[in-house]
This record gives sequence, structure tokens and C-alpha cells, in this order.
Amino acid sequence: MSLPDTPSPTNASVNASVKAKASADVTNRLILKLSCEDKPGIVAAVANFFSLQGFNIKESSQFEDPYSKRFFMRTVLDSCEGAKSVETVKSAFEAIALRFSMRWKLVDGLTPSRVMIAVSKWSHCLDQLLANYKRGSLPVEIVGVVSNHRTLEALCEWYQVPFHYLPITKDTKPEQEAAMYQLFCENRADFLVLARYMQVLSDDFCKKLDGSAINIHHSFLPGFKGARPYHQAYERGVKLIGATAHFVTADLDEGPIIEQAVERVTHADSAEQMVEMGRDIEAVVLARAVKWVAEQRVLRNGSRTVVFDR
Amino acid sequence: MSLPDTPSPTNASVNASVKAKASADVTNRLILKLSCEDKPGIVAAVANFFSLQGFNIKESSQFEDPYSKRFFMRTVLDSCEGAKSVETVKSAFEAIALRFSMRWKLVDGLTPSRVMIAVSKWSHCLDQLLANYKRGSLPVEIVGVVSNHRTLEALCEWYQVPFHYLPITKDTKPEQEAAMYQLFCENRADFLVLARYMQVLSDDFCKKLDGSAINIHHSFLPGFKGARPYHQAYERGVKLIGATAHFVTADLDEGPIIEQAVERVTHADSAEQMVEMGRDIEAVVLARAVKWVAEQRVLRNGSRTVVFDR
Amino acid sequence: MSLPDTPSPTNASVNASVKAKASADVTNRLILKLSCEDKPGIVAAVANFFSLQGFNIKESSQFEDPYSKRFFMRTVLDSCEGAKSVETVKSAFEAIALRFSMRWKLVDGLTPSRVMIAVSKWSHCLDQLLANYKRGSLPVEIVGVVSNHRTLEALCEWYQVPFHYLPITKDTKPEQEAAMYQLFCENRADFLVLARYMQVLSDDFCKKLDGSAINIHHSFLPGFKGARPYHQAYERGVKLIGATAHFVTADLDEGPIIEQAVERVTHADSAEQMVEMGRDIEAVVLARAVKWVAEQRVLRNGSRTVVFDR
Amino acid sequence: MSLPDTPSPTNASVNASVKAKASADVTNRLILKLSCEDKPGIVAAVANFFSLQGFNIKESSQFEDPYSKRFFMRTVLDSCEGAKSVETVKSAFEAIALRFSMRWKLVDGLTPSRVMIAVSKWSHCLDQLLANYKRGSLPVEIVGVVSNHRTLEALCEWYQVPFHYLPITKDTKPEQEAAMYQLFCENRADFLVLARYMQVLSDDFCKKLDGSAINIHHSFLPGFKGARPYHQAYERGVKLIGATAHFVTADLDEGPIIEQAVERVTHADSAEQMVEMGRDIEAVVLARAVKWVAEQRVLRNGSRTVVFDR
Repeated sequence: MSLPDTPSPTNASVNASVKAKASADVTNRLILKLSCEDKPGIVAAVANFFSLQGFNIKESSQFEDPYSKRFFMRTVLDSCEGAKSVETVKSAFEAIALRFSMRWKLVDGLTPSRVMIAVSKWSHCLDQLLANYKRGSLPVEIVGVVSNHRTLEALCEWYQVPFHYLPITKDTKPEQEAAMYQLFCENRADFLVLARYMQVLSDDFCKKLDGSAINIHHSFLPGFKGARPYHQAYERGVKLIGATAHFVTADLDEGPIIEQAVERVTHADSAEQMVEMGRDIEAVVLARAVKWVAEQRVLRNGSRTVVFDR
Repeated sequence: MSLPDTPSPTNASVNASVKAKASADVTNRLILKLSCEDKPGIVAAVANFFSLQGFNIKESSQFEDPYSKRFFMRTVLDSCEGAKSVETVKSAFEAIALRFSMRWKLVDGLTPSRVMIAVSKWSHCLDQLLANYKRGSLPVEIVGVVSNHRTLEALCEWYQVPFHYLPITKDTKPEQEAAMYQLFCENRADFLVLARYMQVLSDDFCKKLDGSAINIHHSFLPGFKGARPYHQAYERGVKLIGATAHFVTADLDEGPIIEQAVERVTHADSAEQMVEMGRDIEAVVLARAVKWVAEQRVLRNGSRTVVFDR
Repeated sequence: MSLPDTPSPTNASVNASVKAKASADVTNRLILKLSCEDKPGIVAAVANFFSLQGFNIKESSQFEDPYSKRFFMRTVLDSCEGAKSVETVKSAFEAIALRFSMRWKLVDGLTPSRVMIAVSKWSHCLDQLLANYKRGSLPVEIVGVVSNHRTLEALCEWYQVPFHYLPITKDTKPEQEAAMYQLFCENRADFLVLARYMQVLSDDFCKKLDGSAINIHHSFLPGFKGARPYHQAYERGVKLIGATAHFVTADLDEGPIIEQAVERVTHADSAEQMVEMGRDIEAVVLARAVKWVAEQRVLRNGSRTVVFDR
Repeated sequence: MSLPDTPSPTNASVNASVKAKASADVTNRLILKLSCEDKPGIVAAVANFFSLQGFNIKESSQFEDPYSKRFFMRTVLDSCEGAKSVETVKSAFEAIALRFSMRWKLVDGLTPSRVMIAVSKWSHCLDQLLANYKRGSLPVEIVGVVSNHRTLEALCEWYQVPFHYLPITKDTKPEQEAAMYQLFCENRADFLVLARYMQVLSDDFCKKLDGSAINIHHSFLPGFKGARPYHQAYERGVKLIGATAHFVTADLDEGPIIEQAVERVTHADSAEQMVEMGRDIEAVVLARAVKWVAEQRVLRNGSRTVVFDR
């Protein structure tokens, strides 16, 4: 199979800029996200720390949850003094993190997140992710696609993304999940995207992945759960249908919501047309959620999320 | 209390055109809506009938429900031969209606529908209905506002709309509903709008009004039923909140949906802000539903609706 | 290059239903679109005609332009008596068309429109069209893709769509356009889609294609014409950006508008991000316009369009 | 004229909380907005300053314009040590402001902005502003309404808002604007809202008000300028219409954009219906812009704005 010889212009330039960074663990840009109990002085402490480390704040978003009294922050920092070691800055930050009992993450802002995608037979979500990825508008590294069917293998080949066929039966579920998890670890994936994977993950697997898996729920939560949600929505005569991207937890379809969107439907749209329209919404909502998680814009807040989407 | 001496320009012209029609039961414009089992020849029969009666089709919308095999139609007809008697045309149409076992309604298209509004203490839905009404963008005649509180009496006075105070207690519910129904009948209201009325209508009253009452449900159905829906939505961390306008049936909040809309919310919106944003959506969605029902654009289809919104 | 061995489920069933029709010029479904001066009796005449021909109206949309006094109609008709010859019905309809001086088109509703696509180097619009096409949600037959670059050849190969490389220079424009037109005719294409083709068509070519070519205009018309529209929009500090799909006329970017959409942007979105977001909107708007034109939902009304989108 | 005896619940509580603050120049909440050339250490300096002054950051938004290299910030600060004098904090902040050459504003976050509204005969924008204001969802103090017509006087009376009739002719424009400006100053208004005022302000008046006047432009900028924009939009057959709220500058309709919104229209919407729909959009967009400006969420950035809308 021949490769696409001319990548689209955006893709080329994005890749170039991403790869321009030195290959060692040094970088000119950091992204910090953190949450902690709200107290006076957090922002001052963080701002001072990075000012002294030679970083300038490029973007910063903060939020104080008035109910839980928890504080959330995401900051993009550019070095004023050339590339710096991520590990060195991390070590230095430990003291502040400890002082405020932070949950935090500090990553190289120029290395894309590593993503593994699980699919079944339906292509619409994968289509969108791969097309966005190829033209450079999804800032991730897709390290592999796993599927219990061979249906989408050729598509992955064309996009030059490794495809792993992991068939599943009732009896082989534990082994299949173990194999999937091994691939996840071997490829140092940051998170797993269930792009209409159509298999319910075991509690055990959910726990292993907690906070590191994103699902797309066909139809608008919490409206229509269970089988054939668009048909349920049709029966009820709704005028809007939608999709929900959420983190995967053991409690199926109840994980923290990352993003939702809806589209108008009318009496003239059949349940089948609603399925079709639903696919477009699912693809868009999932791609948006993946982008935001990859850019460290999504923070967990109990059963909710904080999304710093700009 | 002084009257607003200068009506807004639109209002004036709308009223003028509405009143330009002769006061007797003759008109230059008819609106027909009908539904029946789908069979060949319905459109031809209807089109022929009105062509022979001297009417020209100005707008027409049709829909065949592929599941129920039922046919729905709404037609606006202009007389080519001057004002005609509505009753005469109705009598003549009986034969066709009978032939196809139609459920149908034929009304004077230049006389606005008569609407009664029930409210409690919250003003946002009533504000929108009265402001739209006054400036001529809600093509109805508001024949009265009933309320179990005096809170919104002054507002109605300013808009010169009759206000009826009908207090209610657990014990007086049957009498209060009887009084409300009497006002509804005496004023020859075409339908009742529950504009955040906050009282659950009795089954008996629902039945009397079936198909003639519209409710606005705060929050997006079927997501969050019951008390404090915005707080439920907040707890769940949804990214969209909305409102649903539906016909009132004995099965609370389960009546056929007329219109829905949503608005984005974020982690930064408190439950109280969501209540506030929800009010704007409720007001807009209800006003839209009232307009469409008033213009005979909404047809019942079992537990669903057909809305010919253009 | 290997073929995708398992088409997506939708695609399979759509193709099946499309191909189920007899291969000769007979069909069970017709789509009629027409416009003419508004006069009494048009709908009755059309409805009677098809009733007598053994067709039942499945869907029908009508519109009378109150300014131009022109009447527009689109009707989907199902045969009650088995497959019928399209040509025979067309011949019979001539008399009515003549009586009302109609501009009209009657097509087999089970044979998809034939579409040719012109592209340059940018893939986003073509991605969307091909992905929708493959999974059965774009009811057309893509008969070929022409381009002045080889960039997107591999993509077309993967989707098994014929790709034609037609390079162009200032000097060879007439020949290149002639070659493109020949391909258009040889493949019996119904219309040409300029999916970010990036070449201005000559007046002569525009005229040949009049009404049979669709363009996507980056940015929201009539706001920002000319070069680098997103950068213009950025400079102006707009809060919404959009895209416009329109028919191609000799008057560049001024052809009748088919569809438009916008997306919110903020101060934090750079001109480059606006370009990126603009691509998503362009792809969606163009795909929608192509679908509607293919389904005979778009009628010309002078410099405007009538779009019966449901 | 009798007063509305029972204010709506929200209004009551909002007023209560606003008035709960001590009447002297002390407060428990400050809002700071600033812009300056981007340099290392700004956030650290600001955060340290307020930490030492006994304030905790409740919300903070920052933005660095990558083109102009200018830095923008809005921060809401709550006192940890009881009510403090705004003037004292302001004086202390001077040193930091000077160090970074800031354009800045520090206001009491519990005292609503003072707004004057100019109208002509059209009520829709004023309706929305007054209704939102009355039910507590527009956090401003409306200090007066000025108009060159008496049309909306009764409406203002009902809402108990001072109404000033300032008729205007070609010859009396300078005097009328002088009178308006005097009212603006006497009432210590923070900004002026042109709620479809329909008069072009003189260059001189624009300059006096620069940055302190908001206009609503009917129709979507920069699409259709000049007279009868909806009719222009209708002629062009657009599928979306909209409204733009912007700051008033001497260059008519070209001031920095604060907010925009659009609504779908179809071929079936007449120019008159588009005017009607346009009114709803204008009212909503203007109310949103007024709220954001009142809450110090809008910062000027040359010919653009930075809007920290959450």
C-alpha cells in the first residue's frame, strides 16, 4: 500500500514544530494543571515559583468551586532562558505541591499526548479522529488502534496507524482486556479513547484505566440510557438529539462529563435519520473531548469536570 | 394607572391588519390542519376542493409518518374572490373530511387565537409573552392571566391584560380549578399556557384541557425530572441545560413535546446561574411554542407532535 | 492497493436499497421539483396528475414567494402500482408543465445524483464528503475527483474514487477547463463540487456550468471577501466565523447562497486557529449543501434559493 | 401610578445582597482589570500584592495577545479580613501599575455599574434590559433612560426608571447631545447604552464617550451596513441573520465588537419576518454585552476586545 506522498500543509508544519524540540527531556514550554483546597496565596506561590525558574506565564486559567471550596488551575509557561529539563522543574515544584496538598501534573507542552483508540465496526468517530490527526488539528500522537473486528484495519493502514486485532468472546474477555492493557502500557499511551467500541469494559479494567479512558455516549445523557437510545428519543418525540463524551468509570455511562452537544431534529426525521445525525454529533463531540484532554484542559472535580477550554 | 399612549410601531400595524377583516364570520384567509390515515388522493382532493371554492394555496406543508402511516397537512389558503364565510366552507368540507376519516380544524387565518395564561410568582415567561404580544410578534389575543398570587398583577395592568387572582390551598384545589376552567370557557380561550404556574393540575382538569394546555418544563426532558432540576443538572456536571415546552396530559411532564432548546454551561456556572440561564431559555422556548400552536402549526401524533414551523 | 473488505453497515444497506431498483429506466419513486408564476390550481393539477398516474404523495413542500409571486414545489411520489418508466411519466407531465409555464425537473428518486469534485491541496472538505459517502450518509454517486495537484490522489484511491490529475498554468487554463468539462460530460455528472479548488473558474466555464456547480466560501459572506478572509475577520475582532456554500456564477462569490453556518470564536483564538475552525465549518456546510442539491431540495429563485431542507 | 408591590424573588435577593454592603467606600470584593506589555513576573507581582493586602483570588482570567504581545487580566478578589477601603487598595496598587505601565481599573465588586440608556421609538432592546434588570439578572443600576421621543416613557415609569425626553432636530443636535452628556455626568453613569437610539452621534460626542458607550447594530457586521440591512440580507438570500454589539467610536459601526449572535432564516422568511427575528437577537446580544461590560469583563485591545466571559 502506497503512502500519501504529500501530507496536508498544516500537518507538515505542526509536526515540524512539534519535532523541532530537542529529543532529550528538555523543553521550552510546560503545561501545569493542579487542584487543591482553596487557600490564600496559591496563585502567588505558583507565579513566584515559575518566575524564579525563568518561565513566563503565557496562558492561565483558574477556578474556585464555591461548593467544594476546591481550587483548579491550568497554566502554560514559556521559558525565557532556553530549553529546560522537565524533570528538574518537577522536582523543584514538589515543595509547593506538598505545601498546598495539590493533585498536580506538569508536562512538556511541546510533546503531544499519546493516545490509543478502541473501535468496533463503526467508522464515524475514528474517521473524524484520523482525519483531524492527519491534517494536524488533533494535537496527539495516535499510538495504535485496537479492535475486536478487522473492519477498520484498512482505514488505519491508509493513515499509517498501527492496528491491533483483538477478538473477544464472552469467555476470553479477561484475556482480551489484559492484551489491550498490555498494548496500552507498551505504547506508553496517556489515555484510551473508546470510539464506539461497543464492549462494556470490566470493572477491573475500568479501575486500571480510571481517569485515563474517554467514552462517547450516543444520545444525550442523562436522557436515554440503554439500548437503541435514538429510537427511544424518536418514540418520545424529542426536538433535540445529542452526544456526551465522558470519562470511563466502573459506573457505566455515569462518569464525569467532558463535553456535550445537540442538534435539532423534527417530526420528519426518522429514527434511522436520527442515528445518522447522531453519528456526526458523536464524532465532533468525541474529537473535541480528546483534544481538550490531550491539551491538559480537563481536570476532575469529584463526579464533575473543570474544562478550561480556552 | 395610565395607558401607554403610543403603541410600538409593529403592534399598531399588526393590530390594524388583523382588525381590517370584516367583523362577521367572513375572511380572506383560512388555515386548515388535518391528519388521517395515509391514502392516495388526499392532496388532490383537498387541493381540488379549495380551488373550486375560490381559494389559492399560499403555503402548504405535508408529512407522512412512515411508522404510523398517518398523513398530516397544514395549508394556508387565500380567497381569490373576496371575503368568504368560514362556516360555509367548513360545512362544504365535511364531505371530504368524512371520506378520509380526517381529524381536522379549519380556522379564520386573520383572527388571532385566544390565549389564557396561568402564572405563579415568577415573571420571566410572562415578561416574554407580554412583551412579544405588545410589540406584535406574538400573533394571539391574550384574554387573561390567572394566578394563585398577586405578584404579577401590576405587570398585567400595565399591559392592559385582565388579571384574575385565584388563590389555592390543598383543600380548595377543585374549586380553584373549576373557577379557572370557567374563566377559560367564558373568555372563549383556545388554549391555556402554564407559564411557570408551579401547581400540578388535577387529572380531571388535565383531561378537560387535553390538547389545549401548554406547559414549560424547566430543564431538558427527559433528563432531570422532579424537584430542583437545575441543581440535579449541576450535580451531574452537564455541559448543556435546556427547556422543553409540551402539551399537558395527565401524565405529568410526559405530554407530547412541542419545542426544546439548550444553552451551554460550564464548570464555572453555579446551580444558581444555571437557574438564571434556564429562565431565559424557558421564556424563549415557551414563546415559540405558543406562537406555533396559535398559528395552527402543531398537530398531535400520538405521544409525539408534528410541527410545521415554516 | 487493497480494498476495504468490510464496508460499514450503513453503506452496505444503502447501496443495497439503491441497487434493488430495476436497472432499466423504471422506478418506484419519483422526485419532482418545479417553479412557476403563482396561479390558482397548480397544486390541484399536480396532485390530480400523479393520483391518476398511480402515485401517492409521500412528502411535499410548497412555497410562494410573496415578492416575486413565484411558486415553488418539491414532491416525492411513490408508485402504488409497481415500478414505472420515468420517461413515460415525464412525457405525460409535459402538458401540465406547459399550461403553467413551469421550470421543472422530474427524476428517479432511487438513483443517486452523480457528482464530480474538484480539489486542490486541502483535504478537509474532500475528507468529509468521502467519509460521509462511504458510510452511506451522502446519497450521491461520486463519479470522480479532479485536481491540479496530486496531493489527494492516494486518499481517493483508498476510497476507490477515480482521480484525475489536471495541472493548470496561466497559459493552459482554457485547455484544463475544457478537459475538466469533458470529464464532467463523459461521466454524466449532475453537478460539480468545488471543494476548496482554489482556482477561479473562467466566465466561460461558469456559464457552461451555471446552476450545476457548488462552491464553498471560506468565511461568512458577505462579510469578508478577497484574500485571507480569516485574517481579515481576526483583525476586525469578530466573535463568529463561518462558511457559505453557494452556486457558482460568473460573479465570483455572489452566486445564490445554499447554506451557511457559523461558530463562536474569542479573543483567544488566533487567526491560525480561526483558519482551523473555519475548515471544520466549511466541511460541514459543503457536505450539507451537496446532500440537499443531490436530493433535489434546492431551487433557484433569481439571486436567491429556495431550500426545502425537510 | 402604582408600584409593583411584590418584586420577583431574584430581584429581591440580588438587591438585598448588593445593598448589604456598607454604604461607605469599603467592600469585601474587588474586581481588577488591567492590560500592559507582556513581561515576566506580572501575575506574580499582582498575586503577591493582593495576598499581602489580605485578599484571596476568587476568579482570574489572563490572556496574552501573541500578535501585540500585550497581556490582559481580570481578577475577582475577596477580602479575608473584613471590608476594606477601595481607595486605600487603589493607592497601594499604583506602584505596581506604574512598574508595568498598566492600563488598569479597580472597582468595588459589590456595587453595580451605573448605566444610562438611550432609546428612540423601538422597545425591544429596552424591554429586555428592563425585564432582566427588574428580575435581578442584569447586575447594573439603570440611572436613567433618555429618548428623542415620548413613546417609551410609560414603560420606564412602570419600571420606576427616570425618563428624560430630549427631542432633537438637525439644528438642535449639539444642544441635545450636551444635555444628554450632562445627564450622563450628573447621574455618574459608567456607560451609555444605545438601545436602538437611531441617531448618529456627533464625532465630538463619540470622543467624549469613547469606551463608555455601547451600540447594538441590527444585522451581522461587517455584512450589511447602511439602511435597511435586513432587506439587504433578504435580497442576498442569506441563511443566517444576526446582530453585533460594539463600542461606539467616531468611525460609525466600526468600533470594537463585544458580542455577536446569529439565527437561521430560510427562503420562507420575508424581510419583515427577518426584521422581527432580528429584534429578538438584538435584544439578547445587547443585554449580554451590557452585562459583560458592567462586570468588567471587556477590555479594549486596539480595534478588538478581550472578553473574559467566564
